[in-house]
Amino acid sequence: MSGNKASKQKPCHHCKNRPASAPPGTSMIHYEKFWLYRHCSSVQQRDRQAQKAGQLFSGLLAMNVVFLGSAFISSMIFNHVAITLADLWILLSILKVLCLCWIIYYLLGTSRQPHAVLYRDSHAGPIWIRGSVLLFGSFSILLNVFQIGYSAILIQCKSRVEIVFPSIEIIFIFTQAFFLWHHSKDCIQVQHNFTRCGLMLTIATNLLLWLLAVTNDTIHMEIESQLREVEQRFEGKAPFSHPCNETASCTCPNTTICKVFQKGYILLYPFNTEYCLICCSVLYVMWKNVGRRISHHHDPHIKPKFKLQGVVFGPLLGTIAVIIGICVFMMYQIQATGSAPNHQVFVMYYSYYIVLLPLMSVGAVIGTIIHALEKKELDTLKNPTRSLDVILLMGAALGQIAMSYFSIVAIVATDPRDLLNSLILSHSVLLIFQNITQNVFIIDGLHRQPFAAATEARHTQHAGEQAVASELPSEEETTTSSNQEHTQMSPSTEEEMKEEQNHEAYDQRRVNMLELGEEIRKVSLSYIHSYSHLSWKRRALREISFFLVLCNIILWVMPTFGAHPVFENGLEKSFYGYSTWFAIVNFGLPLGVFYRMHSVGGLLEVYITA
Amino acid sequence: MSGNKASKQKPCHHCKNRPASAPPGTSMIHYEKFWLYRHCSSVQQRDRQAQKAGQLFSGLLAMNVVFLGSAFISSMIFNHVAITLADLWILLSILKVLCLCWIIYYLLGTSRQPHAVLYRDSHAGPIWIRGSVLLFGSFSILLNVFQIGYSAILIQCKSRVEIVFPSIEIIFIFTQAFFLWHHSKDCIQVQHNFTRCGLMLTIATNLLLWLLAVTNDTIHMEIESQLREVEQRFEGKAPFSHPCNETASCTCPNTTICKVFQKGYILLYPFNTEYCLICCSVLYVMWKNVGRRISHHHDPHIKPKFKLQGVVFGPLLGTIAVIIGICVFMMYQIQATGSAPNHQVFVMYYSYYIVLLPLMSVGAVIGTIIHALEKKELDTLKNPTRSLDVILLMGAALGQIAMSYFSIVAIVATDPRDLLNSLILSHSVLLIFQNITQNVFIIDGLHRQPFAAATEARHTQHAGEQAVASELPSEEETTTSSNQEHTQMSPSTEEEMKEEQNHEAYDQRRVNMLELGEEIRKVSLSYIHSYSHLSWKRRALREISFFLVLCNIILWVMPTFGAHPVFENGLEKSFYGYSTWFAIVNFGLPLGVFYRMHSVGGLLEVYITA
Repeated sequence: MSGNKASKQKPCHHCKNRPASAPPGTSMIHYEKFWLYRHCSSVQQRDRQAQKAGQLFSGLLAMNVVFLGSAFISSMIFNHVAITLADLWILLSILKVLCLCWIIYYLLGTSRQPHAVLYRDSHAGPIWIRGSVLLFGSFSILLNVFQIGYSAILIQCKSRVEIVFPSIEIIFIFTQAFFLWHHSKDCIQVQHNFTRCGLMLTIATNLLLWLLAVTNDTIHMEIESQLREVEQRFEGKAPFSHPCNETASCTCPNTTICKVFQKGYILLYPFNTEYCLICCSVLYVMWKNVGRRISHHHDPHIKPKFKLQGVVFGPLLGTIAVIIGICVFMMYQIQATGSAPNHQVFVMYYSYYIVLLPLMSVGAVIGTIIHALEKKELDTLKNPTRSLDVILLMGAALGQIAMSYFSIVAIVATDPRDLLNSLILSHSVLLIFQNITQNVFIIDGLHRQPFAAATEARHTQHAGEQAVASELPSEEETTTSSNQEHTQMSPSTEEEMKEEQNHEAYDQRRVNMLELGEEIRKVSLSYIHSYSHLSWKRRALREISFFLVLCNIILWVMPTFGAHPVFENGLEKSFYGYSTWFAIVNFGLPLGVFYRMHSVGGLLEVYITA
Repeated sequence: MSGNKASKQKPCHHCKNRPASAPPGTSMIHYEKFWLYRHCSSVQQRDRQAQKAGQLFSGLLAMNVVFLGSAFISSMIFNHVAITLADLWILLSILKVLCLCWIIYYLLGTSRQPHAVLYRDSHAGPIWIRGSVLLFGSFSILLNVFQIGYSAILIQCKSRVEIVFPSIEIIFIFTQAFFLWHHSKDCIQVQHNFTRCGLMLTIATNLLLWLLAVTNDTIHMEIESQLREVEQRFEGKAPFSHPCNETASCTCPNTTICKVFQKGYILLYPFNTEYCLICCSVLYVMWKNVGRRISHHHDPHIKPKFKLQGVVFGPLLGTIAVIIGICVFMMYQIQATGSAPNHQVFVMYYSYYIVLLPLMSVGAVIGTIIHALEKKELDTLKNPTRSLDVILLMGAALGQIAMSYFSIVAIVATDPRDLLNSLILSHSVLLIFQNITQNVFIIDGLHRQPFAAATEARHTQHAGEQAVASELPSEEETTTSSNQEHTQMSPSTEEEMKEEQNHEAYDQRRVNMLELGEEIRKVSLSYIHSYSHLSWKRRALREISFFLVLCNIILWVMPTFGAHPVFENGLEKSFYGYSTWFAIVNFGLPLGVFYRMHSVGGLLEVYITA
């Protein structure tokens, strides 16, 4: 029954050609088996143990692949001669081809088997995640197209494999994005262990691609900063060096297309790292969902939709923050990419943060307090997506927090009374505080049940009627709209259902236009009264989360597109030494960017369910 | 009732002066509260959410302390001038004093409150863990005594704080060991959040001490290896440098006592690292157990005791492995600490591993297969200690596996056909395989329920009778011994109980000595028959786990007491560069040592429950 219901509520165009919509009886459930656990008394217990064993073995597979790849990448970094980038690309291409084979097999074989996808996890792969997979996937494809173009122009000094590898990458990204778009909600019920291994292999490949991108990205940063020093020293124009381009003779000819390819490559690079991380998290949820049977009461209640209604200050303040942020970012980029980055631009940059971060922290704290005041039930059902969200939020915040602590120690030990230093110090302290308060706010918000959907439905119905009042449409339209609202409503309390049915019956009895207008005015007045009286908490939560969404977006955009003052201010670099600080930034910065992105997702969910 | 039962079965001398033995009614349960979750419908739900929130906040506290400390330690390593070891010691001493205050408050305040410890987790803090806490704790205290003595001798060139810090350390280690010995099983039911924060602070302090010990230990290794190079170059005797001793003028006078302090300090160092890690794991289990209410059917069944009976080949083979291992280790240490470590000693060392590791892997694989063949129920109850064991096993194995992969890549890229290189290569591959198979074997074994305790009791009873047959003791002795066995038996199946009661009744009816002898001969013959027929699987499991225990002990002893061929063979060092390989070894080696130690514990449990 639940399968039927689910496929009705969340129709997906590829479900139709499968018999998945048939009601899943117990006869259709493929309980897992594992040779280690043949002698269990109950089928359920055996199934659970087999699941654990499958997860263990597929996890071991991924661990081995990741370690092998990491050893390769480290060798490439520390011993260019023995292991070249080409060797690494060969390894990664083999992995990608293996993943591709599995994905295609899954698309054509596994998922089309009878009773393969009886359940779909409504929490997995929300639209914003799948949307960003598509978005970052397209950017990554574009990046590879640029790379192919760049290599094609410089074909005389580059090997042909530098065209082959990006081509494989494009196919991989495309297929993976397609796969995740359509199948991220699947709880696959057949070929459990093979699917787990396939998913884990894909996760490992993405992790390695991320690792390579991070190291390459930072190598590129390093080269750029060294180049700037050279430029400063000779006051001449040094040729721009490409990260994969070791030979100095192989420079870009002075054509526009080559410059476009080069610049595009540099600009699009950060998206590739984010793409890999997002794919990993989606694939991980799929892996956790393999063999999961969702019980009936887990069935998705209709999710409230994103609406801008009723929020004013949050968007306003947020937009102001974004606009100022963009200005600061522009000025920073112009100044910092110039020959000599001066103190002023750092002061401006850090001042912006010092104003913004306390606002965000205060917002998060107020939000948490409102959560505590609200009389809302907690959602304590098992939910792998949410657990992962929480882990990712905490884990990704670690990068930023670790970097901040390192900054703090460096500054306190150096000279905390200097203007710039004191700015950096307060920036670091505030950043830690902001990360923690925001995490508490989001985690707490994710565990609250959506605002009673019935109340929501009633509100929207009233809103519909309000719209009627202004436009005065025909009778039928009103009825259909209220019916539409009704289908979207979940049966939370029967009393309210009945009340609303009475309303409807009453609606249908209305004939006279004047009477209708009178009625509507009354209803809308009482609605406005009840709205302003009842849900100031709800409105405040929405304002706060909207504000935080916009702030996180700007804090995400700035480091993504190249503002790395932690590296460019030179303070920590001289304190810890170049390579150590480099390693710390290398670890912290990509995680920080991912944290901001993930926070946006979490905050949007808090906004919607508030 | 359960509290009564538990305190009877596991009597602890300090339980008596507390009212904990009173039956825990619902009125005594202190449900947790948290200001964030005041509006939950059910008390249980609020309790669970409050628990989660408490864990989150105490975890955040620990995270901040650990990051601050790590930043300090990194600064100390990379910038000796700004942050000195003394600064770090001050920070750690503050943390230790805070922990001490909390521990004393816990011992005198929290744990003596009414209904504070209603439940005790029978799985937490098994005797081998608490024993190793005591053992390593004593060694660590001895280490600090040596350090105080060493500093006292060289008081003219050392500051007085170098005597103060070790004194605080001694008090901390002693109090913590006492606390863990008596309270590691507690499921505390009062002052939840304060206790959680205290535990997390102690965990963070131990982690930081471990981190410092690891970095100091490896700095010491580095100094030693550099010294050896210097020695080789000048063919003279360079003065031995102490890790904490920067000034060359401050050397040990040529007295025996000073040399003893110095050597003892170096020998005892590894125990300190292990002490910190073990304390962390025990404290973590305590933290997980805060506020945990163990349901009645969770009550401890009497654990089977450690018995050597019926195993021959395992101990034999294991002992041979240990003896050869000690010889290899001795020869290695003599050769490697000499002026020029030659190839032969490395060949010998790696050959030993290459012979031993496949044997261990085969044993683990056979054990896993036997587990699969056995018709034994799985123990799927919630058990934080076991979950932690599994996580620690997997996590600690990562260190060894990562190092192995790095070795493999380095050797394959260099020259895998050289004799020593091919030995190192096979050693690395076998090590990965051994780690994985052993982990699977242990994890699988930990999830099996102990071998039906009734059968066990019957066996021991029969064995008792067998002893009677050889010694022909008095009637009473036989009866008491069989009674003793009976009290150790858990009521697994009622039928077997009855059968055994019949046996006992029969026993008591025996009068004639000759009849008794005849009877016993029959019984023992049938016992031998049934034993050899029934439990070859069980015996094989015991043989294998005993063999693996001994092997893991020798593999634990060798790196602990100074055999670090991964660092001394020079191959990976030259491939990755000194500092990179140093960091990898720094990460992998202590984890590897911890892995071996933890495997011994896990394997002993598998042996006992087999």
